[in-house]
Amino acid sequence: MNILITNDDGWGAPGIMALVEAMKPIGKVYVLAPDSARSGFSNAVTATTHVTLRRVEQADKSIEVYVTSGTPSDCVKLAINVLFRGDEKAIDLLVSGVNHGSNAAINSIYSGTIGACLVAAEHRIPAIGFSIYDNSHEADLQYFRPYLGQLTRHLLDEGIRPGICYNINAPTGQIKGIRWTRQCKSHWEKEMKETLLENGERGYLLSGYMVNDEPEATDTDEWALSHGYISIQPCSPDMTYYAAL
Amino acid sequence: MNILITNDDGWGAPGIMALVEAMKPIGKVYVLAPDSARSGFSNAVTATTHVTLRRVEQADKSIEVYVTSGTPSDCVKLAINVLFRGDEKAIDLLVSGVNHGSNAAINSIYSGTIGACLVAAEHRIPAIGFSIYDNSHEADLQYFRPYLGQLTRHLLDEGIRPGICYNINAPTGQIKGIRWTRQCKSHWEKEMKETLLENGERGYLLSGYMVNDEPEATDTDEWALSHGYISIQPCSPDMTYYAAL
Repeated sequence: MNILITNDDGWGAPGIMALVEAMKPIGKVYVLAPDSARSGFSNAVTATTHVTLRRVEQADKSIEVYVTSGTPSDCVKLAINVLFRGDEKAIDLLVSGVNHGSNAAINSIYSGTIGACLVAAEHRIPAIGFSIYDNSHEADLQYFRPYLGQLTRHLLDEGIRPGICYNINAPTGQIKGIRWTRQCKSHWEKEMKETLLENGERGYLLSGYMVNDEPEATDTDEWALSHGYISIQPCSPDMTYYAAL
Repeated sequence: MNILITNDDGWGAPGIMALVEAMKPIGKVYVLAPDSARSGFSNAVTATTHVTLRRVEQADKSIEVYVTSGTPSDCVKLAINVLFRGDEKAIDLLVSGVNHGSNAAINSIYSGTIGACLVAAEHRIPAIGFSIYDNSHEADLQYFRPYLGQLTRHLLDEGIRPGICYNINAPTGQIKGIRWTRQCKSHWEKEMKETLLENGERGYLLSGYMVNDEPEATDTDEWALSHGYISIQPCSPDMTYYAAL
């Protein structure tokens, strides 16, 4: 099977390296990732200029690696249209990540990692996003690492319904187990930190913290993560709020 | 009431001007918009550098206008945190658009216009995104224009459930009526057009067309638009696919 791997931290991030190693025993690995970090890029596409695409030769000849100036969503579009010449059915699986930082709760709408999965879902390509609750480049992946391949095989065996994808988040440290979850209601506070620019004007840096708006709920991704469980969440690019129809 | 207006085509686009005029009779208008076009920015945020914020003096002293180097999502975050000093309850309504181009079907996941609405929904601020099915800067807004204020008043009177928002799309030309819709299953094809760069390398430009994957369905936004109706769709930032839980 052909496995496409992307991320939003850029080619070279330890998270994507871990994913490559986990996927090699499962299928032929194609990496198409941004050339540097694209955190918080959501489903952004490059609409007003061209993107580049360059192959990066690897010592390991079993994998093909490409980098682009584009976004995570562009990566999936480039893979479908250029690498696989429009034949989306030739891509058996997209995996995205491992993201350095949580994509649980409201974070998922800002996530380039999940954005790439939604593009795959648009094209009925099975897709899984992996993230770890640690923003640092040196995030400790030792406990999550064995689950990457196991969870992928499990979801593939179960069959991923065309048009949906999975958002998987792991806590840091020892893992107690795995929970199916829904997206926790939450919001960010104090997000714009004032800073003085060189020209004397004021600028604003993204900052702040996320607040859990339903801390009592035990079926959410936030609950799972904060209690030491891996969260698996089925997601869809259909944003309709059906209850209001 | 305080009405925040943003868009993804940038301050100065005819669409946002139409929205400002439509909202002035309803409340006190604050515009906080990108300084230029940010099409296809989805829920992207500026994570790795600062954003600027500058007031633009207006001949019309009844409105306040601010522009930023940030994205549509940044605009809502700047408004909450800087303009309204963290008091999200002081913003009674966010309206976004009028986008020059459809945000129906799968387009909604790529839309900066809808991205801004989802940030408002995160903060339980009522939000409505307006788009017209015409990408050009000169999109003819004459038929849609009377509906902007009317639909806004109607949805406010009905009460917008905290945490959701509305994605409203209009066809071009005469309007037959209004339909409540769900997001049409659809996907883009032939999206990456090869182009020769000045350095002799190949680049890729976003291109292609959207395909309706359920052309027979009559309850979708695509059906409404292609039959001359305005589409109103309730949307949520909760991406959980509950049917799979």
